[in-house]
Amino acid sequence: MLDHFRVPLYEALCSHCSHSRGNYHVPGHKQGRAFDEKGLRYFRSILEIDLTEVGELDDLHDAQGVIAEAQALAADAFGADRTFFLVGGTTAGILATILSICRHGDLLAVQRHSHQSVFHACRLAGVQPVYLGSCLDPDTDLDTGIDLRQLEEVLHRFPQIKGVVITSPSYFGVVQPVKTIAAICHEHGVPLVVDEAHGAHLTFSDRLPLSAMQAGADVAAQSTHKMLPAMTMSSMLHVQGDAIDLEDLVTWLRVIQSSSPSYPLMASLDLARRYMMTRGREELSRVIEAALRLRECVSNLAHLEPLSAACQDPLKLAIRARKRISGYRMLEWLERRGIYAELADHQSVLFVFTMGTRERDWTLLCETLRQLDQEIPDMAEESPWSVPDLRSWTLADGPLHELMGADKMSVPLHSAVGRISATMVVPYPPGIPLLLPGEPVTEEKVSYMERVVERGGKIRGLSGRFPLTLSVLQ
Amino acid sequence: MLDHFRVPLYEALCSHCSHSRGNYHVPGHKQGRAFDEKGLRYFRSILEIDLTEVGELDDLHDAQGVIAEAQALAADAFGADRTFFLVGGTTAGILATILSICRHGDLLAVQRHSHQSVFHACRLAGVQPVYLGSCLDPDTDLDTGIDLRQLEEVLHRFPQIKGVVITSPSYFGVVQPVKTIAAICHEHGVPLVVDEAHGAHLTFSDRLPLSAMQAGADVAAQSTHKMLPAMTMSSMLHVQGDAIDLEDLVTWLRVIQSSSPSYPLMASLDLARRYMMTRGREELSRVIEAALRLRECVSNLAHLEPLSAACQDPLKLAIRARKRISGYRMLEWLERRGIYAELADHQSVLFVFTMGTRERDWTLLCETLRQLDQEIPDMAEESPWSVPDLRSWTLADGPLHELMGADKMSVPLHSAVGRISATMVVPYPPGIPLLLPGEPVTEEKVSYMERVVERGGKIRGLSGRFPLTLSVLQ
Repeated sequence: MLDHFRVPLYEALCSHCSHSRGNYHVPGHKQGRAFDEKGLRYFRSILEIDLTEVGELDDLHDAQGVIAEAQALAADAFGADRTFFLVGGTTAGILATILSICRHGDLLAVQRHSHQSVFHACRLAGVQPVYLGSCLDPDTDLDTGIDLRQLEEVLHRFPQIKGVVITSPSYFGVVQPVKTIAAICHEHGVPLVVDEAHGAHLTFSDRLPLSAMQAGADVAAQSTHKMLPAMTMSSMLHVQGDAIDLEDLVTWLRVIQSSSPSYPLMASLDLARRYMMTRGREELSRVIEAALRLRECVSNLAHLEPLSAACQDPLKLAIRARKRISGYRMLEWLERRGIYAELADHQSVLFVFTMGTRERDWTLLCETLRQLDQEIPDMAEESPWSVPDLRSWTLADGPLHELMGADKMSVPLHSAVGRISATMVVPYPPGIPLLLPGEPVTEEKVSYMERVVERGGKIRGLSGRFPLTLSVLQ
Repeated sequence: MLDHFRVPLYEALCSHCSHSRGNYHVPGHKQGRAFDEKGLRYFRSILEIDLTEVGELDDLHDAQGVIAEAQALAADAFGADRTFFLVGGTTAGILATILSICRHGDLLAVQRHSHQSVFHACRLAGVQPVYLGSCLDPDTDLDTGIDLRQLEEVLHRFPQIKGVVITSPSYFGVVQPVKTIAAICHEHGVPLVVDEAHGAHLTFSDRLPLSAMQAGADVAAQSTHKMLPAMTMSSMLHVQGDAIDLEDLVTWLRVIQSSSPSYPLMASLDLARRYMMTRGREELSRVIEAALRLRECVSNLAHLEPLSAACQDPLKLAIRARKRISGYRMLEWLERRGIYAELADHQSVLFVFTMGTRERDWTLLCETLRQLDQEIPDMAEESPWSVPDLRSWTLADGPLHELMGADKMSVPLHSAVGRISATMVVPYPPGIPLLLPGEPVTEEKVSYMERVVERGGKIRGLSGRFPLTLSVLQ
């Protein structure tokens, strides 16, 4: 039995602070002794433990001391055989995992509806992806996960596939049947990698769906900072079984991540694990209750409703108007009132609740949504959005880096229809590419992009302003 | 004229904190409302500004607001045309730069004596490196930089080379003649990339050598956190001229870095720039004076001496014993007394001074070194180290990823002599590979590694413990 009250890495930092008499190493602020004065208000105390690989502070990239201990405690807490702390976010975990599974020219099955980091990894690794289509919720077009029959078909048709990468939960809290998916993957002898960026909390409540590790995935990359109390950009990579070569994985993590990893970020992972193992279950239970009450309250409104029953994570609440009002417009209304949500899209606004959500936050949101509800009738209905369809599976025309390396030209967005995209176009958030290199530019996608930009949404991968331009194959 | 008293990003964070009424977004700690209680001692205040891309906080990966403004101020301060904030350390800047310059199969001239991130970048980019040898200080074997005639020869012999990558200053403060090197590169029509991890302070004093930007390099990647007051892992990438495709560079930064970049890290870059532009020159001047006095004091000791006159950065002081005592042994002695230095190697201990070094730190170090000096005569002399020679230039046998992808086997280190390494072996710090994939394993290198490990130094890339094993080509 491990002692989850211990925080070996954080304790080592505290102890170093009290024992060190002379600091003749980096970082340059020397534990806060030089720093912009106005900045000290927020930075003073954290700088004391913003240290580097000296004394007993171990080394993330070759962990054998306090970092190894902290990682072992995390592995125990999250049900993994091995856990690696990430200071480059879940992005770093996804990149390193795919680089360690695939060599140049390999095939990899990836959910088409994945975060950009998955496609970035494919590009870096020289992978030719087989895209798995998504099932869509008929009412909302919300992605409810890959189609299991499609997965079987793809694995059967391309036996050379090296692994399967899916996202669960989705940004909107849709959890896939990971247990079944893992079983299918293992039947075909390939590892299942789950981008579990939005699911670090699943392990800690019986009222939530199983976590990817509990469900038998081989790898799960989690943004600890998103749903649990850790600093932004600190994540964990969990591995179980022997499908993954750990030595290769460690090597790739060393390649991708900074050789000067941030100790505050790493220590916050150690502290988040203790928080969850000592009081997290209780706190989580409390917040799930409150979130369900809020969802109930929204269900009773006249003009607003929760987005979909497919969202199984109560800590995510997406709302939409019963008449056609875009999420962008509702978010604008909310931000004018000092209410900040996670994201908006063409139909909804997404709110994220965590153990940091306080009593007054629930009341405030409930009241604010009631006000918004009353104003919806006065808002002009918007024209319908045509939402791009990502249902079928496709084999990319080649490795992503080759498609992106081909001869290309820049054309105004509106005249790009019918051409082939040479780049990745990503509405952000949620960060899921609308266009990938090699995909045809459709009327539907162009009109969607134009409307997102018109509504003040952000899209990465387009250039210029008037007009917007897109890079297409020549 | 830009107003360097402003800190647009930091100000936006402060302003967001005072205006936000409801936080329904990530990170999960919700500005510190949920967090491990013991951890709050150091984390409480920083968590308030550990925010995400909401409201007016802009987006690192598509900067158009306060981050763009902060970067423009930094570019002005550091003499660049464009500056990019890095949250993945200088590593991220090196990876993205090389990925944007090279395509698969391209040749790139890189200083053999570079930090591992340069070789990692070559591996990721599918580059075949031409290694530039180093000139060595005859007394200390210290790397004093590339050989200019070798550079000319290599650029002449391989006109297809896409760029040149050097490190200046070195870890030990040796600054290369960047102006001359840049002129040679530009004569051959290739960009010069400088890994300036150790030189973020150079811009701010006339008593220091020119910075890479001042000397005409095309790209300089700087660890702001190392020599200036910014948080660990926060760096800057400076670009000038038009040799680099900025759109490509931004795309690669997006690939390599976290899609949830840390705002405290970014804000600390904004604050470090203001610190330097408002009071940094004066502070730097003060600390240079003090460092020179300390060096003088060490020069007068009987048994210790400053490592080499080749070290032109007064803020780095490497000391060695006049008789053969390894740096590892001296560092051990120092750490037992609570004195932490930057690194030790076979011959020296390296101390780093910055504007955070206080009056009492100089006194303490001076006194401690006097004590050490008195104990040196009682320490047993060690046998001589044979230091690997990295003087000549070589063309790698192929792209690094192919060399690392070849069939390999693990052999005990002592029986690896005469074989070809399949991996990168890196004593850390300083992080410069002793062996690269494709390089012959020599007697000299094996004996060096064995002694480093014996002395408690760290080496990445070896496996096992008893015996140590190395991965070699079959």
